Amino acid sequence: MAAGLQVFGQPASTDVARVLTCLFEKDLEFELVRIDTFKKEHKLPEFIKLRDPTGQVTFKHGDKTHVDSRAICRYLCTQFPEDGNRAIYGTGSLERASIEQWLQAEAQSFDGPSSQLVFHLAFAPQLNLTPDEAHIAENERKLQQMLSVYDEILAKNQYLAGDEFTLADLSHLPSSHYITSTQRGRKLFTSKKHVARWYDAISSRPSWQQVVKMQSEHPGTFE
Amino acid sequence: MAAGLQVFGQPASTDVARVLTCLFEKDLEFELVRIDTFKKEHKLPEFIKLRDPTGQVTFKHGDKTHVDSRAICRYLCTQFPEDGNRAIYGTGSLERASIEQWLQAEAQSFDGPSSQLVFHLAFAPQLNLTPDEAHIAENERKLQQMLSVYDEILAKNQYLAGDEFTLADLSHLPSSHYITSTQRGRKLFTSKKHVARWYDAISSRPSWQQVVKMQSEHPGTFE
Repeated sequence: MAAGLQVFGQPASTDVARVLTCLFEKDLEFELVRIDTFKKEHKLPEFIKLRDPTGQVTFKHGDKTHVDSRAICRYLCTQFPEDGNRAIYGTGSLERASIEQWLQAEAQSFDGPSSQLVFHLAFAPQLNLTPDEAHIAENERKLQQMLSVYDEILAKNQYLAGDEFTLADLSHLPSSHYITSTQRGRKLFTSKKHVARWYDAISSRPSWQQVVKMQSEHPGTFE
Repeated sequence: MAAGLQVFGQPASTDVARVLTCLFEKDLEFELVRIDTFKKEHKLPEFIKLRDPTGQVTFKHGDKTHVDSRAICRYLCTQFPEDGNRAIYGTGSLERASIEQWLQAEAQSFDGPSSQLVFHLAFAPQLNLTPDEAHIAENERKLQQMLSVYDEILAKNQYLAGDEFTLADLSHLPSSHYITSTQRGRKLFTSKKHVARWYDAISSRPSWQQVVKMQSEHPGTFE
């Protein structure tokens, strides 16, 4: 019974985007509740001031509330195993264990430097902030290190946790999208053959393309 | 004190659009709360299913709730007389009486046929409905009759209630916009010299242009 799923937040937020992509993959019916604040003396091109792209997501299912985007994805996959994409959280226990390892690696090692690059490469220029070159380079180095490991894995597998697209891959989409929207960030992904092939494959999925469309309608800016 | 203004609804709704335009004219800070329902087996070009364009608006100011779009506009103008556009609800009692007459004429005589034309000219084709020619012609006739009276008034005044843009004019924007977005509907407005000049003036106001931008991001379709 899929009734009663509600997401509160802006698609421009990476956490909201992660949850939306999972909902589209699972082909579930849900409501998206957005609150836009309109300030006085609004300017036309930026009259919708969104929360920042690292803004949290709130998810409700009946009387249950969750706020961690990866936990919400797990929850959706375990609550609705038969809906939409059934392979996305693994079909066996070994596969699920591998997906779990990747979800944790993404949250603990990929998310930190990638969030920094999302802000400093994609959003800071919009705020006319002077880029902190040392900080960018340090996070680029960290991400490059991660992506080198990914490249080795992806030389053997189609996707991170095997030959199926799973939450392991999905979870990387929101930050990677903002990073690859900048010339400098894109190189991190295109310079590695297997990572480049993998990112092309995961970012062209219809579920993610829908989220990108929603983000382009309401681009994220900082209040 | 402008804090605590909330609008619930979709900008594609003519009633919501009326309230948003008034809020922008009054340069008030507010929150827009939108709920989009995402159905199973969504199709890419229409994955956001909005309520129909005659869908209601709900407005909250602290613990007060209003649901009539014209009443909300009046309320905003009397509660916040000093904010933004101060002339929009008249600066004297004679002027206000004239605006009131026009608001009532719009609600009682313009809104009926124009809502019918919004549906049958602008939205029915999207639903692949066969146009009901007799019904369209009947409502065109009614609207034309109204607009002939408008044309005489507008030969003398810049705007309906005098030489200032007021709620009298604003209230006509949402339906007129959908009607003039069709070739057949546009003729109703362009064939009358003074109505054409008036509609050009009111529809190019920045407040309304913001609403049009919001509507184009989330075009109205029927569930």
